[in-house]
Amino acid sequence: MIGVWINGKPGTQIDYRDRGLHYGDGLFETMRVADGRIALLSQHLDRLLHGGERLGIPMPARAALSREVLRAARSRPHAVLKLIITRGAGQRGYRVPRPCRPMRMIICEDRPPPDAGAADKPVRVRLCRMRLSENSVLAGLKTLNRLESVLARDEWRDPRIGEGLMRDHADHIVCGTMSNVFVGHNGRFVTPLIDRCGVSGVMRRWVLETARRNRMAIREGRVHLADLVTADEIFLTNALIGIWTVGTVVDRKVLARPASHAMADALRARFAAATSRRDALA
Amino acid sequence: MIGVWINGKPGTQIDYRDRGLHYGDGLFETMRVADGRIALLSQHLDRLLHGGERLGIPMPARAALSREVLRAARSRPHAVLKLIITRGAGQRGYRVPRPCRPMRMIICEDRPPPDAGAADKPVRVRLCRMRLSENSVLAGLKTLNRLESVLARDEWRDPRIGEGLMRDHADHIVCGTMSNVFVGHNGRFVTPLIDRCGVSGVMRRWVLETARRNRMAIREGRVHLADLVTADEIFLTNALIGIWTVGTVVDRKVLARPASHAMADALRARFAAATSRRDALA
Repeated sequence: MIGVWINGKPGTQIDYRDRGLHYGDGLFETMRVADGRIALLSQHLDRLLHGGERLGIPMPARAALSREVLRAARSRPHAVLKLIITRGAGQRGYRVPRPCRPMRMIICEDRPPPDAGAADKPVRVRLCRMRLSENSVLAGLKTLNRLESVLARDEWRDPRIGEGLMRDHADHIVCGTMSNVFVGHNGRFVTPLIDRCGVSGVMRRWVLETARRNRMAIREGRVHLADLVTADEIFLTNALIGIWTVGTVVDRKVLARPASHAMADALRARFAAATSRRDALA
Repeated sequence: MIGVWINGKPGTQIDYRDRGLHYGDGLFETMRVADGRIALLSQHLDRLLHGGERLGIPMPARAALSREVLRAARSRPHAVLKLIITRGAGQRGYRVPRPCRPMRMIICEDRPPPDAGAADKPVRVRLCRMRLSENSVLAGLKTLNRLESVLARDEWRDPRIGEGLMRDHADHIVCGTMSNVFVGHNGRFVTPLIDRCGVSGVMRRWVLETARRNRMAIREGRVHLADLVTADEIFLTNALIGIWTVGTVVDRKVLARPASHAMADALRARFAAATSRRDALA
């Protein structure tokens, strides 16, 4: 079952003048609903509101947004909830309309939880040819300008490959098409800095904060192609899937065979424990 | 008066699942209609179809597209016609739907021709802080990922400033927020290469082709900030405005005072002559 609300009312039609359509002038969040609750809701709202500030899109009040998504998620056992906020309808041209009336849309679609075992079944990952372009003003945000992710995801159709890693033009690994990546050597992990490009995932943030609180050896830094080859554990994070162990990185040049799943397993257990405590997540 | 057609039928509502909205997964063209004809129609269609090929969006046949926009433009004395083609509605996620049913929208809005004299009245231009990010796969295309142009245009509200120039991260001048730029020294002009970022304008192409046919000293190359300061003529091009003489480049660091309008005037006269010949344009 799918529920769609536009500016708080049920509906499935968007104004043809919407700047989300014309320019990708907006932001989105994709959230996981379980038993009517939303995992990492607070982190999702943080990123969205921060993005609104950076793009200069006036955002609804945090409490109102929170209420609205929780209402959409209510009584759903398992669903994916997508929240889009655009700068709304405008006249022709890039110039920002003033006043501007943002459009918000919630799509909540029932979806079974990831297959039992899907998250801990090691995933095959490839290296994408499509590069992420760099712009520090937009780095980290989940804007509606996602053509690079679309084209990267279109590079493979082999269903055995679960994700593709993307690089910047200096050949640093930045993130997956829909995930962040953590690369471990001897129990010490690095996740790429998201200061020039890439999306700063809410699950990535949860991992970094959990690591900080618990003195786990996980930090941000630059990750090079060569680090994938020598890694002994790699995992991906994503708000829908959680923590995803990488089995192999398949590419002409890179073939990593991570042997350990220790950190991914430990984090997954912690996240499961946290999601069972209501206050930790919403 | 505004006419809006979606997939060939009058309508103003877009499917909430459209990938143009979700990801900016599409392309557009903005065309100038005069006396029911469309200036540079062939060049607009070239760019659009080329973009479709690069993004892997199946495009309508050229002849059908041409007929459809001409029908929308028919009997309009002066209008702006915007044609958007997206990858259409899709399921959640970046993965390209197969088969995919692209969505096309035409918006045709009456608009008086640029004020007599507006195009030859020298325009004040500023230098934008927002940089263009580089991706050679997308360079030149007029995709729906336009957040950088939106944010650059939002840097100024002074109505006396007509355009902002944008740079790449290496400080090369690339283009304006909605125009291309030509920078002249002693009668020799350079327009920035559009190989890493920027939009390859149809009017820019017309100028380059006209120059080639007529042995005018206009070529593509890298343009540096310093070239603006020393230039003795600068002009902008855009499908709606045509050829636009730059009066001053206002910035903390740059103050160019182009003295000559010779090349812009010559090109404007040639373009006016060409637009009066039906076959040259549509």
